[in-house]
Amino acid sequence: MSDRTVWWEAGKVHMIDQRLLPLEYRIAGFTTVAEIAFSIRDMVVRGAPAIGATAAFGMALAAQQSAAVSTDTLLVDLQQAKAELDAARPTAVNLAWATSRLLVLAGNLARTGASASAIREAVLTEAQHLADQDVEINRRMGRFGAEVIPANANILHHCNTGSLAAVDYGTALGVVRAAHAAGKNIHVWVDETRPRLQGARLTAWELMRDGIPMHLIADNAAGLLMRQGKVDVVIFGADRVAANGDVANKIGTYKLAVLARENGISCYAVVPTSTIDLDLPDGAQIPIEERGWEEVAMVGGVQIAPDNVPVYNPAFDVTPHRYLTGIITEEGICYPPFTTSLRRAKETAGGR
Amino acid sequence: MSDRTVWWEAGKVHMIDQRLLPLEYRIAGFTTVAEIAFSIRDMVVRGAPAIGATAAFGMALAAQQSAAVSTDTLLVDLQQAKAELDAARPTAVNLAWATSRLLVLAGNLARTGASASAIREAVLTEAQHLADQDVEINRRMGRFGAEVIPANANILHHCNTGSLAAVDYGTALGVVRAAHAAGKNIHVWVDETRPRLQGARLTAWELMRDGIPMHLIADNAAGLLMRQGKVDVVIFGADRVAANGDVANKIGTYKLAVLARENGISCYAVVPTSTIDLDLPDGAQIPIEERGWEEVAMVGGVQIAPDNVPVYNPAFDVTPHRYLTGIITEEGICYPPFTTSLRRAKETAGGR
Repeated sequence: MSDRTVWWEAGKVHMIDQRLLPLEYRIAGFTTVAEIAFSIRDMVVRGAPAIGATAAFGMALAAQQSAAVSTDTLLVDLQQAKAELDAARPTAVNLAWATSRLLVLAGNLARTGASASAIREAVLTEAQHLADQDVEINRRMGRFGAEVIPANANILHHCNTGSLAAVDYGTALGVVRAAHAAGKNIHVWVDETRPRLQGARLTAWELMRDGIPMHLIADNAAGLLMRQGKVDVVIFGADRVAANGDVANKIGTYKLAVLARENGISCYAVVPTSTIDLDLPDGAQIPIEERGWEEVAMVGGVQIAPDNVPVYNPAFDVTPHRYLTGIITEEGICYPPFTTSLRRAKETAGGR
Repeated sequence: MSDRTVWWEAGKVHMIDQRLLPLEYRIAGFTTVAEIAFSIRDMVVRGAPAIGATAAFGMALAAQQSAAVSTDTLLVDLQQAKAELDAARPTAVNLAWATSRLLVLAGNLARTGASASAIREAVLTEAQHLADQDVEINRRMGRFGAEVIPANANILHHCNTGSLAAVDYGTALGVVRAAHAAGKNIHVWVDETRPRLQGARLTAWELMRDGIPMHLIADNAAGLLMRQGKVDVVIFGADRVAANGDVANKIGTYKLAVLARENGISCYAVVPTSTIDLDLPDGAQIPIEERGWEEVAMVGGVQIAPDNVPVYNPAFDVTPHRYLTGIITEEGICYPPFTTSLRRAKETAGGR
């Protein structure tokens, strides 16, 4: 299991410490819900699908460690754990989606008279299942997505959406992997993705390990490459997709989508249906997390700006759906009008 | 004179070592043309007007140090110095503009029978004059530019165009200074400007020293701010402006101009007329410098990407003129059609 980003082993949640990559590969182990919430908040683990799976394992930890004898008390403990986990990061919907799925399971079992220990076991089994399912979903997205990647394509990719952003394989980077595996002779422009440098640190690391041709670029270089005809497709993941197709994703995504449309380049978001939030009519209501000044003013422990510099550091932006060519999901590619196609994908996934 | 970016003193060219700011303020002194070329190439000094003045002082050094007795030999030495200085960086036109101005002066004096020592003195005097004139030109651009900055404006600024990019005061940042001095209650979004971080290191430092309200942002955050209505004007400098108004400037400028137009925001380049190159019909022919991998893969001596990561690092991009509201010069603001307005500004300046 150690080729996964996050996994359960011997009563502990293990994960690759993504804060240290690519300079150091270290596995961290966490044993409490508070530690899991910290691991998400501090970005030991990041990426919408990965934090969904991590939160699911956090719920399993909560169930295992609850001293509850009655199922009612166990459910209260799980509700508290869900609240703590959901609050760790506000933008990605997968977090609450995963914790809800486990809480609903526990509630349903309680109503059918299951014992607290049976519920504990079921919650862990379901968390494991959710993680396994994430890998399978990514592979299906990869197969659908690879179809829209032309042979010899130059793909511009934002942030990290690979193995490390999911349990394994990845969302947008899963599409890259599938296109590469299909022999399409692709090349990837990896933007570094300031401020946290997930592109430079994580995506470059994944692609180099897989032998997929790539160049690292500063985020600022994307426009020039598009103008020069050196980009055929822009792809990225998402942290939340509204019912109309507006996409919240890592800061800088909106810029890529605008530049792509300006230059007649296809632009796709790649997301599991769990990232689609039909309760939000559009992106205006997606909460945008603001993170600390040090992410901008410091890099790798080195200060790059004057002492006490005022910083504004929003972690995500919202790309209006009109800039997207399509949204690639495990149920196929959704095209405009997204209100219809996303609902259909979500329903199909729910019916499985 | 020590509040200037570059100056001549006691037979040496002195400059603030901009590679070390904001963590260290150190003055470097150079005594040979080769050292001056190095200072430009390695970005001890950068910014189109500043490297123009630096190259002018480099020509003065060459004249002082030439062993020539005859004026012919002195002119050959100056031609060699010009070639070495011009080759230091390819994109900014101010470099060749400044060295040409001094070479032409020397040639004219030689033709009128001036002695080698008279030419030596005249070249130094003219280099000093060029530097003084740069400050005066910046203050005039500032006065014109401040008129188009609304009261309470949020200004988005790219790279460094301040005192440090010129001899003093600055181009786009000169406009910011003039608007602030006029009591317009402005606030500046300083983008960090990867890969060399001129925004985070230099512009933030200048604005904080002047007490001008600002926040530092990752380059990726510009789009979100514009979408949120938090930007009223986008301004930047330029390294070369073609006859039709296409603008070569620090990588990432094109993206800002596209995003500005997409969001109905005014967008200005601020340049001395010496940056306008009427010999180039459009931006397609502006040479784009590519710089080293380490600018992207390392920050402040810290490696941020995997070992041996392939990097593509273009230093500039070209913004087509159709994205610009206007081009602010020391002769006034040029509006479309730029082919006419730029030629007029250049002619007026030439007539002074």
